[in-house]
Amino acid sequence: MNENERGGPSRRALIGWGGAGLALGAAAAGGGVALSHDGPSPASAGSGGAVEFHGPHQAGIATPVQDRLHFAAFDVKTEDRAEFVQLLKDWTAAARLMTAGKPVGEGAYGGLAEAPPDDTGEALGLSPSRLTLTVGFGPSLFERFGLADRRPPALADLPKFPGDNLDKSRTGGDLCVQACADDPQVAVHAIRNLARVGFGKVAVRWSQLGFGKTSSTTPDAQTPRNLMGFKDGTRNIAGTETARLDKHVWVSASDGDAKSAWMTGGSYLVARRIRMNIETWDRASLQEQEDVFGRDKGEGAPVGKAKEHDAPFLKAMKPDAHVRLAHPDSNDGITILRRGYSFTDGTDGLGRLDAGLFFLAYQRDVREGFIPLQRRLSAHDALNEYIQHVGSAVFAVPPGVRDSHDWWGRALFSKEA
Amino acid sequence: MNENERGGPSRRALIGWGGAGLALGAAAAGGGVALSHDGPSPASAGSGGAVEFHGPHQAGIATPVQDRLHFAAFDVKTEDRAEFVQLLKDWTAAARLMTAGKPVGEGAYGGLAEAPPDDTGEALGLSPSRLTLTVGFGPSLFERFGLADRRPPALADLPKFPGDNLDKSRTGGDLCVQACADDPQVAVHAIRNLARVGFGKVAVRWSQLGFGKTSSTTPDAQTPRNLMGFKDGTRNIAGTETARLDKHVWVSASDGDAKSAWMTGGSYLVARRIRMNIETWDRASLQEQEDVFGRDKGEGAPVGKAKEHDAPFLKAMKPDAHVRLAHPDSNDGITILRRGYSFTDGTDGLGRLDAGLFFLAYQRDVREGFIPLQRRLSAHDALNEYIQHVGSAVFAVPPGVRDSHDWWGRALFSKEA
Repeated sequence: MNENERGGPSRRALIGWGGAGLALGAAAAGGGVALSHDGPSPASAGSGGAVEFHGPHQAGIATPVQDRLHFAAFDVKTEDRAEFVQLLKDWTAAARLMTAGKPVGEGAYGGLAEAPPDDTGEALGLSPSRLTLTVGFGPSLFERFGLADRRPPALADLPKFPGDNLDKSRTGGDLCVQACADDPQVAVHAIRNLARVGFGKVAVRWSQLGFGKTSSTTPDAQTPRNLMGFKDGTRNIAGTETARLDKHVWVSASDGDAKSAWMTGGSYLVARRIRMNIETWDRASLQEQEDVFGRDKGEGAPVGKAKEHDAPFLKAMKPDAHVRLAHPDSNDGITILRRGYSFTDGTDGLGRLDAGLFFLAYQRDVREGFIPLQRRLSAHDALNEYIQHVGSAVFAVPPGVRDSHDWWGRALFSKEA
Repeated sequence: MNENERGGPSRRALIGWGGAGLALGAAAAGGGVALSHDGPSPASAGSGGAVEFHGPHQAGIATPVQDRLHFAAFDVKTEDRAEFVQLLKDWTAAARLMTAGKPVGEGAYGGLAEAPPDDTGEALGLSPSRLTLTVGFGPSLFERFGLADRRPPALADLPKFPGDNLDKSRTGGDLCVQACADDPQVAVHAIRNLARVGFGKVAVRWSQLGFGKTSSTTPDAQTPRNLMGFKDGTRNIAGTETARLDKHVWVSASDGDAKSAWMTGGSYLVARRIRMNIETWDRASLQEQEDVFGRDKGEGAPVGKAKEHDAPFLKAMKPDAHVRLAHPDSNDGITILRRGYSFTDGTDGLGRLDAGLFFLAYQRDVREGFIPLQRRLSAHDALNEYIQHVGSAVFAVPPGVRDSHDWWGRALFSKEA
């Protein structure tokens, strides 16, 4: 039966085009024009609008941190390189639509009553909510599809750090997608629809909901508190700090060898699920808590200082204070861009909250970023008494999709590069 | 050492009083005056403000539904009635502060450097975010503390329904606390701090984060979509519909016998964790999906109608359509107030999202509300092919805390009643 025979308004109109209309209307109300994701001004960082999908770098790294996260690691199921490349193209097309606040399926997907809907529908009528979708490729992907000679040395496997207690079911992955948005329904919808587009070719290995941001990439903004009640990572790289981004985050054409050339403009992501021993922490004295971080709890100021953003005097802190150990001045200038989120996933069967920090950090080279930093922290940080790393993954995050003809990973899969 | 010897500003000032000041400042910015929780106008339902804690009914039932949920069921660990009563008083005091946007511990708790902080701190600086805290007593509580003759008959144990596949670790509980807020950090903070106040006397049995509301108790508002992409429960009881609340939600003094007298002004809560078979649903045709609900997906209108809130013509729907089976006209007028939230808790080990609806419904009598409704739905609903109930609990939700001297459960534990 065709649409006219079904009576009432066309479902396709309602779901496909009507939905897009609703969403675009909301986008206009929420800010209208797409925001640049490379250092938009804080004033334009309000929720509701769309973040530009195209650009030299992927959005979701230097973009002002959105309120909510849904992160998924995928395993590749297909052995057919052409099929996998087609998936990356399909994902790119879907991401282009969803980040603009449109449902998946306009054009490329059907919308007949006899077929599954183009889009799962739970984000219809919601604004784009500053959705960004950021794709990464894990080390194991390079064991497939004849990619072995393309794995960048900077995508180093992480060593086992002291105290690691990694759950295999929350570790690794051939691919990842980081969905950040100011509305969690929009982020969850995006991951679900990408999983659906990839059905049979990829499968979700693990996923993580982050309910609250713990970092800021907006200059001078207050750092959101983590579940320990502290502001941490207050001197994060801001999306507007082009020089620091170029120095610490974006892969340069001069980095590495031919293996890494396709990564120019990309970055490397380390994801760690850090469980906090909340109940133990909550019984520690205020003095102990402040000593552990090297900050006061109320304002977030470094020891002996008045304000969060005052430059810390590291020697005033205990030798094992977290801020002192993690500070670039203690680590030959190592600086990473942090984008972590708080999580709580119920209880652990022992009456304790399964809660903590889903740590996400971007850097130009894992060997010169997270690895040396975590070697130092895992060996000495006073915070280790209260946390445990229980999940881990590392990904090469390719450069941005440049225009409507480009797709995620094109440089990696092109023959001439 | 006393506070002055520690140098710098007093930590107590920063955490205890300074923190309260910050929070109150934010409250003023976010709306200032406490909103009544009994039928505030939609215009006053914006996020940020405080919801009045005191009243004849607990807040969090008729209150316009907040965006986020953290729900916890607790087991009682103490056998000392006086200690448990003290816990209820301490919880009430803490809830009174937190719902006003203040940290726990003003007055009753210390704030010295040598002691753990009064409050865990992660909500310092955040607005009250319309936080409500709603307490309930499970059937198993009445097996303790000599309460057997106070268990209201309306707090009926739920039978095993066809298709139930309940996980014991997500079922039951002596007590529950429903925390709803527009900021998830505020809701998570509240549950955590109540768990902390209750340390040694109660322990979290299970908890559930709800990332997005799926119902509205605001008249004429659009119903938020569930993870199936549909609007469901569109004719929910609004917080302003006093007559419907009195008829279907609030326990009346004429209800039941002497066992139930302490429940006057209270309500009964049924909580069900409903897993959705998302991947199967997403492969169903649009026609099938719309037939299952008895609505169109785009607008949410009942079959043959144009708008979400148009009165449904039930006979136009398939006999097993969800709306048709759940409608009061098919159930001798049974009406429950729904306050459910979407959840996603990662994956299930088989590559499928562990996601669905955390169903919360309030009613005047479980025997005349959820039980007969679910008997019908579990036997006939077309939706059953795509969902599974995996967690369950029922609670007697006592009346509201009337004033600053009252406390949760006072009528239950008072000797004269």
